[in-house]
Amino acid sequence: MDDAIKAGAGGQEIAAMMNEMGRKARSAAGVLANSGAEVKNRALMAMAAALRAEAPRILAANAKDMAAGEARGLAGSFLDRLMLDEGRIEAMAASLEDIAGLEDPVGSVIASWTRPNGLKIERVRTPLGVIGIIYESRPNVTADAGALCLKSGNAVILRGGSDSVHSSRAIHACLARGLRQAGLPEEAIQIVPTTDREAVRLMLGGLGGQIDVIVPRGGKGLISRVQTEARVPVFSHLEGICHVYVDKDADIGMAREITVNAKMRRTGICGAAETLLVDRAVAETHLKPLVDGLIEAGCEVRGDAASQGMDGRIKPADEEDWSTEYLAPIISLKLVDGVDAAAAHIAEYGSSHTESIITDNDETAARFLSLVDSAIVMHNASTQFADGGEFGMGAEIGIATGRMHARGPVGVEQLTSFKYVVTGSGQVRPK
Amino acid sequence: MDDAIKAGAGGQEIAAMMNEMGRKARSAAGVLANSGAEVKNRALMAMAAALRAEAPRILAANAKDMAAGEARGLAGSFLDRLMLDEGRIEAMAASLEDIAGLEDPVGSVIASWTRPNGLKIERVRTPLGVIGIIYESRPNVTADAGALCLKSGNAVILRGGSDSVHSSRAIHACLARGLRQAGLPEEAIQIVPTTDREAVRLMLGGLGGQIDVIVPRGGKGLISRVQTEARVPVFSHLEGICHVYVDKDADIGMAREITVNAKMRRTGICGAAETLLVDRAVAETHLKPLVDGLIEAGCEVRGDAASQGMDGRIKPADEEDWSTEYLAPIISLKLVDGVDAAAAHIAEYGSSHTESIITDNDETAARFLSLVDSAIVMHNASTQFADGGEFGMGAEIGIATGRMHARGPVGVEQLTSFKYVVTGSGQVRPK
Repeated sequence: MDDAIKAGAGGQEIAAMMNEMGRKARSAAGVLANSGAEVKNRALMAMAAALRAEAPRILAANAKDMAAGEARGLAGSFLDRLMLDEGRIEAMAASLEDIAGLEDPVGSVIASWTRPNGLKIERVRTPLGVIGIIYESRPNVTADAGALCLKSGNAVILRGGSDSVHSSRAIHACLARGLRQAGLPEEAIQIVPTTDREAVRLMLGGLGGQIDVIVPRGGKGLISRVQTEARVPVFSHLEGICHVYVDKDADIGMAREITVNAKMRRTGICGAAETLLVDRAVAETHLKPLVDGLIEAGCEVRGDAASQGMDGRIKPADEEDWSTEYLAPIISLKLVDGVDAAAAHIAEYGSSHTESIITDNDETAARFLSLVDSAIVMHNASTQFADGGEFGMGAEIGIATGRMHARGPVGVEQLTSFKYVVTGSGQVRPK
Repeated sequence: MDDAIKAGAGGQEIAAMMNEMGRKARSAAGVLANSGAEVKNRALMAMAAALRAEAPRILAANAKDMAAGEARGLAGSFLDRLMLDEGRIEAMAASLEDIAGLEDPVGSVIASWTRPNGLKIERVRTPLGVIGIIYESRPNVTADAGALCLKSGNAVILRGGSDSVHSSRAIHACLARGLRQAGLPEEAIQIVPTTDREAVRLMLGGLGGQIDVIVPRGGKGLISRVQTEARVPVFSHLEGICHVYVDKDADIGMAREITVNAKMRRTGICGAAETLLVDRAVAETHLKPLVDGLIEAGCEVRGDAASQGMDGRIKPADEEDWSTEYLAPIISLKLVDGVDAAAAHIAEYGSSHTESIITDNDETAARFLSLVDSAIVMHNASTQFADGGEFGMGAEIGIATGRMHARGPVGVEQLTSFKYVVTGSGQVRPK
């Protein structure tokens, strides 16, 4: 890692360095695209071994970041995300081994057909090229993102937050060692050696066509900036305002259990429910047990006037609550007139992430699943399952709510493109 | 069609109108996304009938455009693209019927699996939303693009060239009638009622998030402007600098036939070959028959110094020839040292569109198909097959060379996104 270029370096110097990183990444991408599964997996296993072997060095680097963070008075939750210990390093190493164990997407034939003239047409997965990852404090993103990009045959340029700079560099050194040991170019996984924000601005511009897609990982401020400024495609979601709709034909026991899990299992993840919609037709019977469950689990409930009128424990919700991602033990609650009204509320206030209907009526469920245009729509399941691992896709680099290319969990398959391979026996096209 | 807003209308007025079109398109997209195949096909058949019934009116409108074009001294090739006659109107109507006959992509399950906890996960095709089409003189794009977007459940905003404005409006009126007759919102297919270029600028900005993707159809100037200025995803290719590589293990008869077809069948299409690469190892035997075939077919051959030295009929090529899309009976020719050198030349000068290797050696073919990162790579077939119809995908809206979302021919499937539909029986996520 070159520390020569520090924060505050001149813009021209940074531009030259970033362009050089882009060129090297593109060149490495060409090598990776034609490297087989075996060599990539060998590199991933070597990276895992290096992480374990270098644990003391990583912990020492992390201690520097933690001390600096405490000195700057960073919040406890932030420091917790930043902190590494033996267990977290082992988890990173194990994650690299899991990624090595995933099926290699590159070269797999997605579709195949033969034309009447004998031409055989195959749609074959190829890497996307060069991925730019812009992230904040979690140092483990360095390993996870680097490994997912490598597995999918992509070169990657990582730009971590300044708060985790020492930790990320120590982890990156282990990845580089793994690449070297497998005979792959080190430039396949590069980390930006400056914390100057100019580097981010340049990455969002695509480095003159050298970055194919940007994946931001972090808080709403970062994602919003990336979505607004990027001139290349972005895989991301700004927020997860997820809804649970309890239909009149819901089993109330199931509805209560799913609602409490969807909200309270972990309140800080993007798949956590933020709004509960209850069919007005069953409010008399269903509202109380749902509110009971939430309050017993320690959740504050903010409802519309109608629901408050039925249950004194419900606090008033205002207009802003419907579009608030609390990421905390608070839920907004509204009575709606059936599935169409639920879908209309979601269309107006949702973030196209994940919504679930609880009902025993398959027709109503089908209508909800069709009407609601979110990356993930569920029937009788908790929104907290919105996760690449839970989907069986292996590790994920994030969840995308855009409609283009990748939607939902972004795993190794979603980090690929495809090309058409046409095999003939001398066919020429008639006039 | 409202003629009230003419070229030169104020920018604010145009912005208000375009934003209103965007809102209406988004609203219509919501209806289309939940309309079945049957009603969409009914609209397409009604459109075809309307085109036939209104042929005299369309021809009269086209005559106005032709007269204006001749008065402005437009080139003959341009006027030919603009011209409509009974046959071309019938072809448009038949194309709508063909599109009605395609399988409906919306709602089809692309992948499906069940998790150990019983959750069933399906990846289901959904429309993209709202497509913006920006095109030039061909009035038939109005019908083709409108129909493909409708079939794939998308609303569309069409912006045709000023030269074909009367023809496009007459055709659009038939599409609107078909939508009305099927009970679908007319706003599903809108045409911009002004030829002011400000409308194009606004579309490229996405109309405040109301346009999901732009598809440009026309010359290099238009495509280049769209690719540079668009703030939303674009499906397009700037040019088709397609290569044929004749390997040392090629059957010379097949190589000659494919090369002549790839270059000369139609020289003006994007899949036409522009550069012929010949393996130096067989230049002595293979060069002459290849050049014979091209010259007999009326093609000018421009080669590197080595090839000129071997065949006096070859004119000199300069550096610029390797990156020139002639779209004319001219081909550039270079001797290369085997498949790796061929792939390296293509990586440097190609446009990632379509390339073909001619060889009887399957290993060499596999290496070419893997090394070359183009939307379409071929073995022993003519590059002129680069076409959605020839691929069996039905009509296409264009060919994309970007790596994101759609690559290669863009048909109805490529105009869709997907969502995950998760079906459970009460599953909650464990801690």
